[in-house]
Amino acid sequence: MCNRDPGARSDALKHLLDSVELAKQLQSKLISLWFADGSNYPGQANIRWRKQAMIGALREMHEHMSEDQTMLVEYKPFEPAFYHTDLADWGMAYLVAKGAGPKAKVLVDTGHHYQSQNIEQIVAWLLEDEMLGGFHFNDRRYADDDLTLGSIDPYQVFRIFNEIHLYAWEKGQMPTIPYMIDQSHIDKPKIEAMVQTAVTAQELYAKAALVDHPQLARHQERNEQIDAEECLRDAFAIDVRPALIEWRKQRDLPAEPLKAFRESGYEKRVAKERKERRIALGLSGTSSYA
Amino acid sequence: MCNRDPGARSDALKHLLDSVELAKQLQSKLISLWFADGSNYPGQANIRWRKQAMIGALREMHEHMSEDQTMLVEYKPFEPAFYHTDLADWGMAYLVAKGAGPKAKVLVDTGHHYQSQNIEQIVAWLLEDEMLGGFHFNDRRYADDDLTLGSIDPYQVFRIFNEIHLYAWEKGQMPTIPYMIDQSHIDKPKIEAMVQTAVTAQELYAKAALVDHPQLARHQERNEQIDAEECLRDAFAIDVRPALIEWRKQRDLPAEPLKAFRESGYEKRVAKERKERRIALGLSGTSSYA
Amino acid sequence: MCNRDPGARSDALKHLLDSVELAKQLQSKLISLWFADGSNYPGQANIRWRKQAMIGALREMHEHMSEDQTMLVEYKPFEPAFYHTDLADWGMAYLVAKGAGPKAKVLVDTGHHYQSQNIEQIVAWLLEDEMLGGFHFNDRRYADDDLTLGSIDPYQVFRIFNEIHLYAWEKGQMPTIPYMIDQSHIDKPKIEAMVQTAVTAQELYAKAALVDHPQLARHQERNEQIDAEECLRDAFAIDVRPALIEWRKQRDLPAEPLKAFRESGYEKRVAKERKERRIALGLSGTSSYA
Amino acid sequence: MCNRDPGARSDALKHLLDSVELAKQLQSKLISLWFADGSNYPGQANIRWRKQAMIGALREMHEHMSEDQTMLVEYKPFEPAFYHTDLADWGMAYLVAKGAGPKAKVLVDTGHHYQSQNIEQIVAWLLEDEMLGGFHFNDRRYADDDLTLGSIDPYQVFRIFNEIHLYAWEKGQMPTIPYMIDQSHIDKPKIEAMVQTAVTAQELYAKAALVDHPQLARHQERNEQIDAEECLRDAFAIDVRPALIEWRKQRDLPAEPLKAFRESGYEKRVAKERKERRIALGLSGTSSYA
Repeated sequence: MCNRDPGARSDALKHLLDSVELAKQLQSKLISLWFADGSNYPGQANIRWRKQAMIGALREMHEHMSEDQTMLVEYKPFEPAFYHTDLADWGMAYLVAKGAGPKAKVLVDTGHHYQSQNIEQIVAWLLEDEMLGGFHFNDRRYADDDLTLGSIDPYQVFRIFNEIHLYAWEKGQMPTIPYMIDQSHIDKPKIEAMVQTAVTAQELYAKAALVDHPQLARHQERNEQIDAEECLRDAFAIDVRPALIEWRKQRDLPAEPLKAFRESGYEKRVAKERKERRIALGLSGTSSYA
Repeated sequence: MCNRDPGARSDALKHLLDSVELAKQLQSKLISLWFADGSNYPGQANIRWRKQAMIGALREMHEHMSEDQTMLVEYKPFEPAFYHTDLADWGMAYLVAKGAGPKAKVLVDTGHHYQSQNIEQIVAWLLEDEMLGGFHFNDRRYADDDLTLGSIDPYQVFRIFNEIHLYAWEKGQMPTIPYMIDQSHIDKPKIEAMVQTAVTAQELYAKAALVDHPQLARHQERNEQIDAEECLRDAFAIDVRPALIEWRKQRDLPAEPLKAFRESGYEKRVAKERKERRIALGLSGTSSYA
Repeated sequence: MCNRDPGARSDALKHLLDSVELAKQLQSKLISLWFADGSNYPGQANIRWRKQAMIGALREMHEHMSEDQTMLVEYKPFEPAFYHTDLADWGMAYLVAKGAGPKAKVLVDTGHHYQSQNIEQIVAWLLEDEMLGGFHFNDRRYADDDLTLGSIDPYQVFRIFNEIHLYAWEKGQMPTIPYMIDQSHIDKPKIEAMVQTAVTAQELYAKAALVDHPQLARHQERNEQIDAEECLRDAFAIDVRPALIEWRKQRDLPAEPLKAFRESGYEKRVAKERKERRIALGLSGTSSYA
Repeated sequence: MCNRDPGARSDALKHLLDSVELAKQLQSKLISLWFADGSNYPGQANIRWRKQAMIGALREMHEHMSEDQTMLVEYKPFEPAFYHTDLADWGMAYLVAKGAGPKAKVLVDTGHHYQSQNIEQIVAWLLEDEMLGGFHFNDRRYADDDLTLGSIDPYQVFRIFNEIHLYAWEKGQMPTIPYMIDQSHIDKPKIEAMVQTAVTAQELYAKAALVDHPQLARHQERNEQIDAEECLRDAFAIDVRPALIEWRKQRDLPAEPLKAFRESGYEKRVAKERKERRIALGLSGTSSYA
């Protein structure tokens, strides 16, 4: 989108506009944008020219969107670009979204932050400004590792959910937030990894719902540091698994999703079917993509 | 400024308004704000409430400022607060400055960034939006180390100056930017450290001025990566010290400032005078603050 | 210890030897060393000369220690020194401890690591080499924040305890590890912070003890990634607070330590006594140190 | 190498032993090892078991090496593994190399460090212990970006060379260090990138050679901080390009290597030849690998 070659830019813009059109046909309300734009070496790029190019293109895309569509602008500090990324942090995504128009919001990918950055604070600020467009969930230790949610730092995910529940309690209604999963299951079986992720999200969301928000608010107002902190710690300490099993049973869902999935034999069956399809198509029987 | 105790907040606001008044009397055009506000433990603070408190206070302060005064809003990721800092990054300072009013700008302290964050990109964005309020210069390796400018990564300082020179070349005039030094000379003699800093700033600013900006712009337009990069590397490689010595001589300034300062005997003389003053005041002859 | 001035070094060495002597008199088996030695600017220090100075001093100190004393060598990446720290990481502390002699071990302060460094791996390596001398416990988000244990990342503390329990299960006995707390309660009431810390340590240690180690070992042997991971997640999810309350009751200890401490009135009583002592001594009634 | 499946391990070991054999036949004295071994999720791996597996394999490989061969053991904090890497830092590589035997040394890849880690200190420690096996040179801003040497932080590369020159000056001879380049030229023309790298290495090595080491040593001995620092800064400030052009001319080498390479037409010629070869082989005329 920020290439200096007008041909490359108009191709990219066409791809954006085609996506808007496809989304309309598919009645998809969300158009999620992540740009790999950036540069690898100092001097290579005119950073300010590129900022304008980005805003200009998104403004044009915005004009083509229908009223009920939302543009999600994602940020990422580095990778694939190693010197500068055009939308490197939430502040840049915010300004670009504002420049595009009122249907543009910021998408938070939990793995796209500098080390030690406070993600829940960014979530709280975006909520307050009605600029939180949605989440790409994953966990990480170093860079954009795309591990399964909560596998490295579950307390951080809980704190993000707590900001959302606290906001909902104060405002009297839960904000509408598209939750997406953006993980890369390098060596984990993919469906099992997704089951793990969904169960983890349920657990941490439930724990955050158990925070005593009226009590928390009182302690915050009175600068009662330890008491306020203990509100979070108490809720996080609760074992919510029995309640979730009960909740699933009431909906005729398997009580233990991972166990149920393994017992279903689904994975073996579809692997067999996929192999047969590949052979029928004259392809090799094995695929690198399990 | 974000304390939940109204008394603490009104004291803090009074301090801000007093500062505005003092600045008027002293004909100081710049009022530079760094807030230590933040929290140390999850749950302790209502992040969104504090955001509003901060913006409200700065808006009130803004109303008391005269037209020719500028409010500089500084950001810092952590320290003294270790869980969340109310103005943790440039995006937060930007939104708060916008919320305060048109006389508020963002102050960039070069040591107040996450590790690996691209500072010159932030400078370029702020320049483009006319929101760059000024600099606090220093260098660092880990956190907010406040070492002398360019002592750890001189190429980064050069790249910051390059963004400013490039902007000036494009726009036809140098932007007005207050340059300040904010260092902590723990074990360096303080005046010598300041002389080192001023000389380093001159050298890196001169190198950045030597970048061939028309040539750089041509290479950037044509996506000529190596050629564009070499424009920066060529200018950085030049030994500008002889030219700066010449420049000083033409102004009857000492050719080698550090050497001249040492030969002046100033440091010993004022140390002696300070000691005598302290003894005359009935204090101990030595002070911890050299 | 690495100063180039022989007088400064012999003073520092004398302090070490005096500490050994005092420890003998006090029957203290542990002598814990943290060195602030380092340099702030490139070029300032001869890094290799200082390495030898450090090893030489510790070897001399080692000779003065009795057979049942242990020297604990702590490492820290930065602060107070900002360019280089003589014992910056566990590898440096390890080599220096080996250079000092067999009574020297490595002390792990959980806050003294680079961001994202895997602390439990270091603990596992030191355990395996019988070089783990002990812990300084605290938590942190950015640098050496010295927050209360588990307040930022409880799952990491759990994983450290899990390495210890796993080691004990494999070897058939729990290793002897001195656990120390090294926190800085900036704005938390100090005794309450210590109560929180002790309770948190109990909880996370208990959760780690609940990991099914035979089952974990089987899954690890068979490269069963998700099953092995779930062993840890299952144990971490358990709410151990009821069992710990039971454990305390059986020992006639208060079931809820923080509540009991607050109800005891101890803090108010000693604050009053301290104030009276200060007044009796002719000092101001208030102290900055609560 | 650390897989729990004995078959996988013996395959990996065979590959190591085959490499030793091939190296003997090719009279290659260096066998450079980088292991991708690690795990992605907590609990997945027995860290201590894997440490022993690694040491055991390298000891066996060491036995097969001839006296004049050197094993280089490389470390890397993360990627491809995201939870734990078996050889994550220099300390782990050091212990494993010591465990393998006297022909094993540590390889320093400049991009394989935690953010802000002091690489030249590690180099100095390894030099002092005669454990520095060689370098993989590149530069980076965030993770293992593999950018061209000195493109992000040239002063750091200079400081690494300075430690080597200082060591050589003290010991009376230059240590034998294999210098290798390990870069990934994603969007830079590959040969031009290598020319840039070689020229940059020459320049920074020459600057480091110009440090006045006797003078530096005197200032270090006397704790003269600013004077010692200025020794490094003075040498770094010198424009060594004219001297290097002279040096090349005396050897009948092109004065400006990048310019000469471009004028040679080599890149176009080999691209044409490669295309013709591909067509002759019945392959598509274009390759993704320029």
